[in-house]
Amino acid sequence: MTIITLTTDFGLRDGYVGVMKGVILGIAPDAQLVDLSHDIEPQDVRMAAHVLAAAMPYFPVGSIHLAIVDPGVGGARRPVLVSGAHALFVGPDNGIMTPALADAAAQTWQLDRPEYWLPEVSATFHGRDLFAPIAGHLACGMKPEALASPISDPVRLEMAAPRRQPDGSILGEIVYADRFGNLVTNIPGTWLAGEFGPGQWRCYVGQHAQPVIGPLHTYSDAPPGAPLALVGSMGALEIAVRDGNARQLLEINPGAPVLVHPAQ
Amino acid sequence: MTIITLTTDFGLRDGYVGVMKGVILGIAPDAQLVDLSHDIEPQDVRMAAHVLAAAMPYFPVGSIHLAIVDPGVGGARRPVLVSGAHALFVGPDNGIMTPALADAAAQTWQLDRPEYWLPEVSATFHGRDLFAPIAGHLACGMKPEALASPISDPVRLEMAAPRRQPDGSILGEIVYADRFGNLVTNIPGTWLAGEFGPGQWRCYVGQHAQPVIGPLHTYSDAPPGAPLALVGSMGALEIAVRDGNARQLLEINPGAPVLVHPAQ
Amino acid sequence: MTIITLTTDFGLRDGYVGVMKGVILGIAPDAQLVDLSHDIEPQDVRMAAHVLAAAMPYFPVGSIHLAIVDPGVGGARRPVLVSGAHALFVGPDNGIMTPALADAAAQTWQLDRPEYWLPEVSATFHGRDLFAPIAGHLACGMKPEALASPISDPVRLEMAAPRRQPDGSILGEIVYADRFGNLVTNIPGTWLAGEFGPGQWRCYVGQHAQPVIGPLHTYSDAPPGAPLALVGSMGALEIAVRDGNARQLLEINPGAPVLVHPAQ
Repeated sequence: MTIITLTTDFGLRDGYVGVMKGVILGIAPDAQLVDLSHDIEPQDVRMAAHVLAAAMPYFPVGSIHLAIVDPGVGGARRPVLVSGAHALFVGPDNGIMTPALADAAAQTWQLDRPEYWLPEVSATFHGRDLFAPIAGHLACGMKPEALASPISDPVRLEMAAPRRQPDGSILGEIVYADRFGNLVTNIPGTWLAGEFGPGQWRCYVGQHAQPVIGPLHTYSDAPPGAPLALVGSMGALEIAVRDGNARQLLEINPGAPVLVHPAQ
Repeated sequence: MTIITLTTDFGLRDGYVGVMKGVILGIAPDAQLVDLSHDIEPQDVRMAAHVLAAAMPYFPVGSIHLAIVDPGVGGARRPVLVSGAHALFVGPDNGIMTPALADAAAQTWQLDRPEYWLPEVSATFHGRDLFAPIAGHLACGMKPEALASPISDPVRLEMAAPRRQPDGSILGEIVYADRFGNLVTNIPGTWLAGEFGPGQWRCYVGQHAQPVIGPLHTYSDAPPGAPLALVGSMGALEIAVRDGNARQLLEINPGAPVLVHPAQ
Repeated sequence: MTIITLTTDFGLRDGYVGVMKGVILGIAPDAQLVDLSHDIEPQDVRMAAHVLAAAMPYFPVGSIHLAIVDPGVGGARRPVLVSGAHALFVGPDNGIMTPALADAAAQTWQLDRPEYWLPEVSATFHGRDLFAPIAGHLACGMKPEALASPISDPVRLEMAAPRRQPDGSILGEIVYADRFGNLVTNIPGTWLAGEFGPGQWRCYVGQHAQPVIGPLHTYSDAPPGAPLALVGSMGALEIAVRDGNARQLLEINPGAPVLVHPAQ
């Protein structure tokens, strides 16, 4: 039972996701379907890439990830497949495949064999008419070379990189805000050597002059309502508020800078 | 693995859908369950019928569609089963089965054998106590005649039909608004013969004096923010706004008229 | 195919539920996953316990229920497993297991064998790193004694009990409000002997001086817009409004008292 995950901005109200599953199961009746998210903000390719990047390491080898946030559907953007060492990815060539391309062994393919799509392909719903059938055929064991032709220039999102600065501090930024208002940064937890706890580091977020507490080990080490930093479940520094919403409290969005100083 | 789809207005917050799945899987452990939508507007039978109609052609032959929007639960409305050439449908006899009845071969059955329901049937949750067990038994291969008795007068929704007018124009109406604010009409794309593109047709929506752009081939053929017409993924004329919400921009709801003139 | 249900306050936007499913399926590829709810109010352990209690009787024997509303994640609260006569339960020891513990045969176990968790356990996402792997191992047939050590003092929520009063009336309270605004009480329907219908009982809710209509048999026995009482699908007295929202209309929340008098 091959796993196929689905990540879209389609929402769950109108049946668009269900119809894709009908198409997949018509081709691959034994596929195991797993929803990652269908509440990606409309057309937010970057958010979808982040959700996919966080989830993909936890799926078994051989999983297929269908990721469709596709503002250019029906236009010139290419439909693609990325084959990596551990997984296959299917979606539009608009940057959503960026996490898949981080794998050095990844090969990108343009989906160019309409005989493996639905007989009629609408201009506005390639999820159902093109990408779902491809995922189904892959789940049945078809190889990328049978469904697509190799290409060498897939679109990649520019991802902000954290920087170690001459004074020993680290400059990063907020890259994701989850529905709890937790703010995920691009600063790896492994960069923060040494003891964790109040007073070990000073973390400044956005334009706030006061540092947040921490980095701490976990939420319960902070008083309720206070902004704190910890190494979150993705292994990166996160800003959170115990029993609260950091995004709202700090009025911070993805893109805001984060500065971490070792306490001298 | 027989597919059972689920369409309800139960939402996903309270576990009502999950408990139905528990009942189904207790009877048919190998069923493949697919959610179409549980965010049908409360008691909006017409919306549910539309979602079902759009999805059902894309499911494999033999699929079972459970559709429960049931304002009359526990009252006089009959629980029914519709057996069509390609699929089975289970739900209340309140019009939600209308898409199933479009199949000339469709036969309707009244569910009248309580021995195939849960031992205790509540007055308010037939989804769990009556319809879910029936779907389970059907997935196990039981025949309609074992579970129900034929009837000949199922309730049908009146569906607005598009009209060709003497002057060559087409008069239809908006029949569905999706969560993106795209407005689906009842005008088949096949009625719009000839070239598509700006200037080929003039499409008027509601009381708006200005025609929308198109019909176009796809969203990316229009400037962002402008209302446009195209043949959507259901094969019908749709009104949309590139990177926007047509329902809000045009202040249009299902039921509003749509007039299409060939450019002379 | 063992069933694993999932109940969380994670929401469906960020992929947190999907990643747990990836971990489970990596260990138990044939597990049948069923979502109960992921829209539990953040940190509302009591709401999760109610949703679980309402659903669990409808799942086949041997089902595994994963319930994770976990404000104390990463702190001192224990991760536990409850083995009952009919089902297994996995989650934090913070009261969410209360419905599982109502089974006299239930045995509680502390999860204390990290070799059955993911190699790296984050401080903030035990759902993925600890509870999901345990559910997977249980689905593969592993026994509680291989994964955990027995304990005798699980945390239980205090549940309000309904009372029969000397004057023959019954005093209970609202214990749950669903998304339709239906208000579920803790008064068993079986306590209301005799005929149901207008005038048989007088039901007072909160501080309202006017009784609601009923208890009735079903919604359609009441006029639209009027608050009514009926025995709901969980077998308990419920307050509802036909075609309306009782919670909003009556301005009542969980915890409010409900008094039922037999009509003299």
